[in-house]
Amino acid sequence: MPIRVTVWGENVHEQKNKVVAGIYPNGMHAAIADALNTDPGIVAGTAVLQDAEHGMTAERLAATDVLIWWGHAAHGDVQDDVVERVCNAVWGGMGAIFLHSAHFSKPFKRLMGAPCNLTWREAGERERIWLTSRSHPIAAGLPDHFELEHEEMYGEPFGVPDPMETVFVSWFQGGEVFRSGLTYKRGAGSVFYFRPGHETYPTYHDANVQKVIANAVKWAFNPAVRLADPNAAPNVPVDVALEPIEERGPRLHHDGEEGFR
Amino acid sequence: MPIRVTVWGENVHEQKNKVVAGIYPNGMHAAIADALNTDPGIVAGTAVLQDAEHGMTAERLAATDVLIWWGHAAHGDVQDDVVERVCNAVWGGMGAIFLHSAHFSKPFKRLMGAPCNLTWREAGERERIWLTSRSHPIAAGLPDHFELEHEEMYGEPFGVPDPMETVFVSWFQGGEVFRSGLTYKRGAGSVFYFRPGHETYPTYHDANVQKVIANAVKWAFNPAVRLADPNAAPNVPVDVALEPIEERGPRLHHDGEEGFR
Amino acid sequence: MPIRVTVWGENVHEQKNKVVAGIYPNGMHAAIADALNTDPGIVAGTAVLQDAEHGMTAERLAATDVLIWWGHAAHGDVQDDVVERVCNAVWGGMGAIFLHSAHFSKPFKRLMGAPCNLTWREAGERERIWLTSRSHPIAAGLPDHFELEHEEMYGEPFGVPDPMETVFVSWFQGGEVFRSGLTYKRGAGSVFYFRPGHETYPTYHDANVQKVIANAVKWAFNPAVRLADPNAAPNVPVDVALEPIEERGPRLHHDGEEGFR
Amino acid sequence: MPIRVTVWGENVHEQKNKVVAGIYPNGMHAAIADALNTDPGIVAGTAVLQDAEHGMTAERLAATDVLIWWGHAAHGDVQDDVVERVCNAVWGGMGAIFLHSAHFSKPFKRLMGAPCNLTWREAGERERIWLTSRSHPIAAGLPDHFELEHEEMYGEPFGVPDPMETVFVSWFQGGEVFRSGLTYKRGAGSVFYFRPGHETYPTYHDANVQKVIANAVKWAFNPAVRLADPNAAPNVPVDVALEPIEERGPRLHHDGEEGFR
Repeated sequence: MPIRVTVWGENVHEQKNKVVAGIYPNGMHAAIADALNTDPGIVAGTAVLQDAEHGMTAERLAATDVLIWWGHAAHGDVQDDVVERVCNAVWGGMGAIFLHSAHFSKPFKRLMGAPCNLTWREAGERERIWLTSRSHPIAAGLPDHFELEHEEMYGEPFGVPDPMETVFVSWFQGGEVFRSGLTYKRGAGSVFYFRPGHETYPTYHDANVQKVIANAVKWAFNPAVRLADPNAAPNVPVDVALEPIEERGPRLHHDGEEGFR
Repeated sequence: MPIRVTVWGENVHEQKNKVVAGIYPNGMHAAIADALNTDPGIVAGTAVLQDAEHGMTAERLAATDVLIWWGHAAHGDVQDDVVERVCNAVWGGMGAIFLHSAHFSKPFKRLMGAPCNLTWREAGERERIWLTSRSHPIAAGLPDHFELEHEEMYGEPFGVPDPMETVFVSWFQGGEVFRSGLTYKRGAGSVFYFRPGHETYPTYHDANVQKVIANAVKWAFNPAVRLADPNAAPNVPVDVALEPIEERGPRLHHDGEEGFR
Repeated sequence: MPIRVTVWGENVHEQKNKVVAGIYPNGMHAAIADALNTDPGIVAGTAVLQDAEHGMTAERLAATDVLIWWGHAAHGDVQDDVVERVCNAVWGGMGAIFLHSAHFSKPFKRLMGAPCNLTWREAGERERIWLTSRSHPIAAGLPDHFELEHEEMYGEPFGVPDPMETVFVSWFQGGEVFRSGLTYKRGAGSVFYFRPGHETYPTYHDANVQKVIANAVKWAFNPAVRLADPNAAPNVPVDVALEPIEERGPRLHHDGEEGFR
Repeated sequence: MPIRVTVWGENVHEQKNKVVAGIYPNGMHAAIADALNTDPGIVAGTAVLQDAEHGMTAERLAATDVLIWWGHAAHGDVQDDVVERVCNAVWGGMGAIFLHSAHFSKPFKRLMGAPCNLTWREAGERERIWLTSRSHPIAAGLPDHFELEHEEMYGEPFGVPDPMETVFVSWFQGGEVFRSGLTYKRGAGSVFYFRPGHETYPTYHDANVQKVIANAVKWAFNPAVRLADPNAAPNVPVDVALEPIEERGPRLHHDGEEGFR
């Protein structure tokens, strides 16, 4: 059974900016999904900010194995309850890939617990992406480095927690570096951040970038059944303790009571 | 100059529950601060939920090198803007220590980006805390294991990200284990979670527990100047790029413009 | 194509000790391989200390996707050149699983760069293995905890580097805990340590233990082509630098020279 | 009491190469130690390859809080028993800092358990070192980036395990990047790798580089008493188990017997 991907796009600049619309006539999300759909192991659909509940209903999330998120101009328009729903899906086992300016998206910041800030420059400069983790599955079939002739610069320090693994680091023509491919686990969900993808350049038409994203989908996919309640904190009563114990001392809680949250 | 600590206490059960009030007549926060104040390198004060802005004003946070947080029954009563202020202080360099039921406190969950859930049982059973990181500064002066005769059980799986270091793991009489001492970095701030401390037992009067907390204060203290804006994402204009580059291709942003958030 | 596994067994106590021979009449390695061979995605063979070059020839390693290693009484008899060959295969992309007393095997110590020491007791006590990483692929199909009624105790502090992920932690009847499932990356190779398996108990006949090992094989398998030389440190001559640069200043090395090792 | 540092230098090119001798007339090790000795909290001495036992006697290691290691041309001349002695000191709590070409030194490779390989070019090109971990103690007093106008290039992929923290990443004029400041723990010892320092350039006279090394000394210093035997694996007899247990089942070992190694 193929991996079910939903590519979430903000879909703002595609509607307002002729340059972006020219590069991505059907939207960036559609371009990303189209590329993924050339892989027989993946079935990708899309959702956008403008959809009801931003297209991120409980049903849609339940039917999504891996979510890809791109946002930039309208991070603040994403409803907080949808952000929580997305994060809960990740904690329950959904994979999540955050692209480029999604470093400042609400769900990524929420999952990182950190500022996720950086420096930036929009000058169409050259970016060279270096592999830092040999034979990592996210880099399968890719050379040790590849270039994007025109990209926005993102510079360190990047305000994220130290990752599980650093897969890529970028070199920029203007003199900066950036950890551009980072893996994390949050609850049962695998999370990957991948830097490239400024909307005024044709980055998501680049074969290497498409390969990274397809590889990341496979890496992030967790075939385990989604956790019903990733926040559950069950009480274990004394009489079913795995080793025989006797209750001792004073208590706050009554038998079978819920814990505080 | 001594390290300035603020011990934040929820201060609810101490007021409502005779058992808790009997063990901690001035509140748990006061007991923790009193123990810390026996160390000449530390000056500890307290703040409680019931204070204006929960005692967590910008001024107070600016004057706090390390914040210690204990909460249980009233996590939901902590205002969201105060939580953001606390997290920003951490990202700017303030140390933070979360104790016991603070695993479900808003600032800890916010900093972890994860459910932080667990299993639990309130039976006054024996907990044995094992050192898992030899000669770690947080374990300075402590034996390889020590016991708390009466504690609440917390069991795995503990829904937190894999830590920078696992310093302690607990054994429970009823058959469970728990990673009970975990270190993290978030922005410029060091974060430590330490498990023991159920309010109906005299845990914070235990010399080993007091030693761990004092050690953790010293570990979490960052002498660097607090970052003015830990979320800053400055633009680097082309004409001040470190290497000479020429602007190429289309742009979204005008010179000197703020980025999107 | 199935994953090719080699189970390496020391094969000493099986020959000398009637208890061990009774439990594992064909050797522990054979029992582990037999269990793996019930999985259609795996083809497992064996090799033993007594084979020429301990069965770890270059050809055999090249034909092994994942190596499983069990040793105890004869760690010192493993030749150092074979150890280096095994480590080079791991660095080149071979997966490696070290079981129980292999914590003190030469290749595991070599890959960890750490003492790998622990405390121990041979009393046939109860071990309960707790999952600490929800929905981890190595725990697929397993409950949150399972028991081995008779096992040797291993206790913390376990002298290994903090892992990429802690997948399991063990509880012991006598009062100890142990991080019993740990993942690492070394070069292009994935490494998993799994604690259970004292030779006087029927641990490798346990269905849960067998499941963990089969899952770990799939987790450790890297389909990428094995690196030809995982230690290569190539010179990049000035005239093929990716960005045009001119040589400046004094040099030690002549063009095309090898670096020092 | 000041931190006792020993700077270990290979001292080969300083004797053979006029350029190196001109920059470091007393040797690189002396230049590094001299800079450290300007800090009142540090007392630094030196040792060289040519000393008896390479200057790394048990007494000298016992009197060394933090060891700094620079080697290049003569890695192979370092005796294996000295390497094991150095690694044992680290596991027991000695801090260790490896500089530049020491990535291929025997003790660093031994501690990493990995190939530690990279790409390189000796062209005197510009290196820019970026901070990737805000307010990290190793970066105290340093700007977010600083430059070395002439350095040897080291390029990714760098064959080391993912670190505890990535503190610095380097940009090179010729188009490469490199993770140039990495922290690790091995046993009770803290380990830092710092990239700059090719012998034909005056890198160790650079104020920023000197600051990093002095900061790293303070970070790596562990005030705990050195472990007497960092490899000890003590048996815990049944009759002193922390929880009462009865011996069950067959045994391999007799009471009080040593474990296998």
